[in-house]
Amino acid sequence: MNLLYIGACRENLETYYPDYIKGIFIDGGVTHETLVAVIKEHGINVLMVDVLDFFFTADLLEKVKDDVRLINFSYQSIESLVDLDAARDFGIIVKKLPRDIYCKEVAEFALAQLLCACKGSLIFDRDMRTGVWNQAAHTNLSMTGKTLGIVGYGNIGRHVATLCQTWGMDILVTKKDLDTPPEHMTPYYRFVDLSTLMAQSNFIVLAVPLTKETRYMVNQECLAKLKPGAIMVNVSRGDIVDEEAVTHALNSGVLYKYCTDVFSKEPVEKSHCFVNNPHTLLSPHVAWATKMSLKKTYDIWFGQTQI
Amino acid sequence: MNLLYIGACRENLETYYPDYIKGIFIDGGVTHETLVAVIKEHGINVLMVDVLDFFFTADLLEKVKDDVRLINFSYQSIESLVDLDAARDFGIIVKKLPRDIYCKEVAEFALAQLLCACKGSLIFDRDMRTGVWNQAAHTNLSMTGKTLGIVGYGNIGRHVATLCQTWGMDILVTKKDLDTPPEHMTPYYRFVDLSTLMAQSNFIVLAVPLTKETRYMVNQECLAKLKPGAIMVNVSRGDIVDEEAVTHALNSGVLYKYCTDVFSKEPVEKSHCFVNNPHTLLSPHVAWATKMSLKKTYDIWFGQTQI
Repeated sequence: MNLLYIGACRENLETYYPDYIKGIFIDGGVTHETLVAVIKEHGINVLMVDVLDFFFTADLLEKVKDDVRLINFSYQSIESLVDLDAARDFGIIVKKLPRDIYCKEVAEFALAQLLCACKGSLIFDRDMRTGVWNQAAHTNLSMTGKTLGIVGYGNIGRHVATLCQTWGMDILVTKKDLDTPPEHMTPYYRFVDLSTLMAQSNFIVLAVPLTKETRYMVNQECLAKLKPGAIMVNVSRGDIVDEEAVTHALNSGVLYKYCTDVFSKEPVEKSHCFVNNPHTLLSPHVAWATKMSLKKTYDIWFGQTQI
Repeated sequence: MNLLYIGACRENLETYYPDYIKGIFIDGGVTHETLVAVIKEHGINVLMVDVLDFFFTADLLEKVKDDVRLINFSYQSIESLVDLDAARDFGIIVKKLPRDIYCKEVAEFALAQLLCACKGSLIFDRDMRTGVWNQAAHTNLSMTGKTLGIVGYGNIGRHVATLCQTWGMDILVTKKDLDTPPEHMTPYYRFVDLSTLMAQSNFIVLAVPLTKETRYMVNQECLAKLKPGAIMVNVSRGDIVDEEAVTHALNSGVLYKYCTDVFSKEPVEKSHCFVNNPHTLLSPHVAWATKMSLKKTYDIWFGQTQI
């Protein structure tokens, strides 16, 4: 078995999973041409993919179909990463991570970022380290009494609701098919459509997979419905939102803060519109990656390399 | 009624309570001599006290007993701020804020800081703003499966437990008199003594009032019992801990992080040992001060100025 890692973080592997199976590492920014050449040269039969801005097209898959037996993604949601029909047609096995392995961690991270934004943790700490004691530097917000809107009713969205169950907030949830009765209905939140959620929520957590339907669902039209002063947290994928429209909403003040772990293009460059915006709270796609879940993820990811 | 504000933040008053009753402002660092002179010169009969490092001694109270009718503290716990026996003997009314007006906000803030420390919110954001995409820059920790120790079983401590009820953590609580059956017993946490709590908790929240018994309760001896790698959050008062001993525990790595909203001496100076320590998360005594609770607090504080 010859492994090629695309975009995998070698430091994370070395640190958290020293038993990882060695192979060849290649950056996510690789061209199709180079990728094909590397595969042919090294007789690669397993691709370990840990990058979001690379799409396996039918064309590319056809070129490597005699070499690659398995494309093994380190993601749970891969519709936007590979042409699944083509892979099936060419007999290439595609694997992804099971849906529930780190949903709790992602939900926790979403709330960490939300609380951090509400309470001003960064601003107060930064001030104090420069010798400034300014209690009015940030509008510290209460959670109790507010309305939280959760976009997405998968494992992550449900766990966000669970974590906040006792916070004294109104919790609204929107899901793909609102007419289908939910399996996990509980009395402490209620289902509404996206427009109602945007209009009524002080805090919004985005927790949907990236699909054709959800791509750019938070666009200019959607953001126009926001309750002024809302705080939005994105732990889904960058392309759930139209990043330009979000920037506009931040700059106009309608959106008070945008906390995001995910970006349209990753890694993010310093020139990205969010990087220089004082109303963002940024993290490099790490919501899932706790010490505990990294170990678990690598166990599973490497456990499914058999071909 | 002539008001003298000691250490009150004029900006907060102007911003959040523009109807506040005007008076004379004086810094908390004032000497007894100057304070007496100001009181005499302006015929002050009400002191509005919003500072923690000033103690009203019997001597001082005697000097102003014919002028001052009321000392009105903006705190809930004032044992360490005024000689209550002397004030009573001299017929000076002492008022403090009711115990429960912002316990929810303080509990929320404690968890914000805890999550922020566990998830690395500051470090990831700081990195990204300098163009660094480093997913391994911080050891992101899961909350689920951990043990949380809450020191203090007042309104704040109990609300911390309530907020975390559904987080999948073991919750330990210690209180003053462990033999007295608690009024609010619930099945999702258990009572232990301080030593057990220190030894078993991954995360510790300090939420006790400052009294003779609690002053420096988190000292070198207590910290020696810590589970290595613990994170501690202080939303009580600075002097609950021995700040030097905490610094030592941080530098030796036994204590992984110390998140504190309170300090032995406030405002904190830039030379303070916590300010330059990379393992601290600092805030300027703002846990209570949300937009909502500032309004409520000022309403109550000014509502009890009648003499």
